[in-house]
Order: sequence, then C-alpha cells, then structure tokens
Amino acid sequence: MQKIEHIGIAVKNLEKANPLFEKLLGTPCYKMEEVVSEGVKTAFFKNGPNKIELLEATSDNSPIAKFINKKGEGVHHIAFAVDNLEEEIERLEGEGFTILPGFPKQGADNKMVAFLHPKATHGTLVELCQDIGTIENKT
Amino acid sequence: MQKIEHIGIAVKNLEKANPLFEKLLGTPCYKMEEVVSEGVKTAFFKNGPNKIELLEATSDNSPIAKFINKKGEGVHHIAFAVDNLEEEIERLEGEGFTILPGFPKQGADNKMVAFLHPKATHGTLVELCQDIGTIENKT
Repeated sequence: MQKIEHIGIAVKNLEKANPLFEKLLGTPCYKMEEVVSEGVKTAFFKNGPNKIELLEATSDNSPIAKFINKKGEGVHHIAFAVDNLEEEIERLEGEGFTILPGFPKQGADNKMVAFLHPKATHGTLVELCQDIGTIENKT
Repeated sequence: MQKIEHIGIAVKNLEKANPLFEKLLGTPCYKMEEVVSEGVKTAFFKNGPNKIELLEATSDNSPIAKFINKKGEGVHHIAFAVDNLEEEIERLEGEGFTILPGFPKQGADNKMVAFLHPKATHGTLVELCQDIGTIENKT
C-alpha cells in the first residue's frame, strides 16, 4: 500500500457536485470518464499526491445508485495505490480478506482495480489499484 | 489544500479494529490518543504521505457514537492538510461554505482543526487541519 490513491464519493448529480468540489478543493476537475461496466460517470480532482473521484450512477442498478438509496450521498470507497496488484491480493487473502467477485478488472483512470469485501473491513469499502502502464512494463 | 492528511473511520471497538487495519495496511498502529472534548479514542496508521485514523466513541454523546448508530461503522470524515487554517477558512467561507460551531479548536495528533458543515458538501464531513507547530512558528 503506497498511499491513498483516491477517495470515491457518491453524488446524485455531477453537474451540481463538480462546481462545489472545485470551490472546496480550489482546483478544477481535470478529467471526466464513464465506466460502463460499473454504471457510473466519474469526475476527478487532484489534491497533492491524492485524488478525489466523484461518482454518479448512470442506471438504477449501479452500485452507486444502491449506495445512495441506502446511505445517502457521501464517501463510497477508499482506494489505495499498490505496486503490484496480484501480489497485494495474495498477501491480503493470506491475511483473511476476501476480494469481491469479478475483480481484478479494469476501472476508471487507466487502472486495474479490485475491491475488498466491506464486511471484513468495518464497513469501509476498500479498493486496491495499480496503473495499467506499470503492469504492462513489468510483463 | 495540500493533500489528504487522513481519513477518519468510525469503529465500535479499537481493540478489534486495530489488528485488522494493521493487516490491511501492512503497518502497525503508531499512536493512540484520547480526545476528551470530542469523546473519542483514536488510533493512527501511516500510509505513505497519508494516515488512517480509527475513532471509537468513549460516551453515548460522542459524535462517533451518533454516527455509528445512524450509519454503522465506516468512513466518518476526510481531513485535508492546509498551510494556514485561518486563511483557508476565510477562503471557504467566501465560497459559501460554513464552519461547524466551536471550531477551529485543538484536535488529535497535535493539530488545530475545523470541520465544514456536511450539508454543503454532499454528505461528506470535511476536516481542515494544520500542525500546531507550524502555527506557532509563524506567529
């Protein structure tokens, strides 16, 4: 675990949330991206070595829609940057953690990502992510 | 806003949560501290340039007890490191944000802290913090 790569925040509407987070963080949104497989549109903000990712659901079946229905808008996940996703998954599984089904797979921001089951992490949804460029360079 | 200083995670029991986060983050808890004025015990973990702060309520009136009763365990706040807390508060109030009553005041980890009202930040409780040492050096 190198650092907090980003915090993912579920919002109802990016058009409303983006200007507010631009004011809060004092920096413009530098990228918007849709992840069709997850049913989300995302907006990214830089904050020193870290990022904030806002997530809006694009369908009622999206995990983000379900999260907002249950808990309201707010922090959805913490993503940690890792050097080697496969090795980190192996380490964590050895420690008794569980990776959510279907992962690792490609996520937003040119990353391979995997989520840990939140039942084992005191309600916090934890994402691990590795730049795809660094995976290709190593193989 | 320099970076994400820490993520605050509300847990029911530090004795149970600490070993789990040590396994998750691959690093030991390096400090535990009680903040009597907030009714919390805290445990800190380093993660590169960032930290994770676990928070356990020490009374039923603690904001952490109320948070867990309402939402369950999970991410309670995002804390951003700022160069100058007073200037950042002035900037944010100028942008229409509201500081919670009673802040700024001294928080955990030798910091002066202030919280923004979460109704204006899409459900995300945002803390600003500045090392007390850097305040004293400037005055």
